[in-house]
Amino acid sequence: MLNILVTNDDGINAPGIAALVEIAKEFGQVTVVAPDSPQSGQGHAITLKNPLRLKEVNVFKDTKSYQCDGTPADCVKLAKYVIFKNKTIDLCLSGINHGSNASINIIYSGTMSAAMEASIDGIPSIGFSLDDFAFNADFTAAKHYARIIIKQYIEHLDSANTLLNVNFPNLSQELIKGIKVCEQGDGRWEENFQEGVDPYGGKYYWLTGKFHLNKTNTKSDIEALKDGYVSIVPSWHNLTDRQMLDKYNYLEIG
Amino acid sequence: MLNILVTNDDGINAPGIAALVEIAKEFGQVTVVAPDSPQSGQGHAITLKNPLRLKEVNVFKDTKSYQCDGTPADCVKLAKYVIFKNKTIDLCLSGINHGSNASINIIYSGTMSAAMEASIDGIPSIGFSLDDFAFNADFTAAKHYARIIIKQYIEHLDSANTLLNVNFPNLSQELIKGIKVCEQGDGRWEENFQEGVDPYGGKYYWLTGKFHLNKTNTKSDIEALKDGYVSIVPSWHNLTDRQMLDKYNYLEIG
Repeated sequence: MLNILVTNDDGINAPGIAALVEIAKEFGQVTVVAPDSPQSGQGHAITLKNPLRLKEVNVFKDTKSYQCDGTPADCVKLAKYVIFKNKTIDLCLSGINHGSNASINIIYSGTMSAAMEASIDGIPSIGFSLDDFAFNADFTAAKHYARIIIKQYIEHLDSANTLLNVNFPNLSQELIKGIKVCEQGDGRWEENFQEGVDPYGGKYYWLTGKFHLNKTNTKSDIEALKDGYVSIVPSWHNLTDRQMLDKYNYLEIG
Repeated sequence: MLNILVTNDDGINAPGIAALVEIAKEFGQVTVVAPDSPQSGQGHAITLKNPLRLKEVNVFKDTKSYQCDGTPADCVKLAKYVIFKNKTIDLCLSGINHGSNASINIIYSGTMSAAMEASIDGIPSIGFSLDDFAFNADFTAAKHYARIIIKQYIEHLDSANTLLNVNFPNLSQELIKGIKVCEQGDGRWEENFQEGVDPYGGKYYWLTGKFHLNKTNTKSDIEALKDGYVSIVPSWHNLTDRQMLDKYNYLEIG
């Protein structure tokens, strides 16, 4: 029986995590540790200046569940060191996120950072996201494909598992063409701050923006999603740009 | 005259950013946009649910400076789209952080995420960190080496600049042996939550931990710092684990 940790960044009451818990329970003993409120855009933030609270809650049927007032990465740290302690986490599943985490979004994503926080410690880990920000998004097709991916992933578990960034296109099951293993698409957000004045006369700036694809690449997650495929990007936490290592020899001294 | 953006995650009043502004001014026209309070551990968090406030302040002599109530990444987004607008940012310098951002710390670091936020848009960008968490850390040697690195980096600017993660050992200038270009060290934090009870009877968990090196690697930033060198890791925002792309062929459908 696999010990499975389920978490997310939209908060423990989001429909996306309920969909993931439902599928995860088919594969093992599920424990949920998730934020008590939405944490989108938290990236890999951790809470250093304040204490964290952990509360056992009864959100999912027959499933041990905890909510935490910290970030998604905090949730996974608490799961590892307080809840599971010496018990092994065999698999971490994060999501299903309401909104795409393809391309550069992995950097800003609490969902992917939670999954990464597990994978840093060698825990096989998958983050799932649906390309639909709506609270009442339809997770039917996402659940179908999440089940297929988790089943295969578990059958192939070995000592060198990578974090997987899985994104589902916002399409019905019949329209999804399949699953592709991809590279992270080369994109960025073009910001466009909404400026306004608050009720007390203070000027504010509210972050908004538009995703922009820098380069087309038929192997990228963005293109796979556009073509109607579920995208999977094997990802990790080593940010070294290896191709550039030699470029900076001129900086070396001694 | 280069337009230089200086930011950090320890807040606009931290001694580390004052040290960096002092050096940066030798190389161009400096504008500071930094958080109004310490933001360590914020990773690549961005503020979506709340508006941001930006306030022009008079913290550094003869230097246009703004403080923002958001995260380090928010500061850079505001700098790009509100303060600089159509003016080019030629160089972004982040830090000098009070504390190391070598190895896995790059993931959690607001300093490095601010620098990365600039580099995502193609802005040449360097994050600097000193391996000393103290507020009154001695930045003398860090300033000396930051000056050398910035000078060389500017002389070699081209269309393919990488984000640099620069860490200074906590040593006096005479004891530093030189500068090494490195790979991100393979390490992780072993958490050890401090448990306690607050004044109202509520149980809390306070994150603390110990850095653990998984694998020794003579090319890593951790080893360079231990050996008395300034470490530089060319870094980027593409988290694809390219060596693992083929491993997951079994997941493909269609």
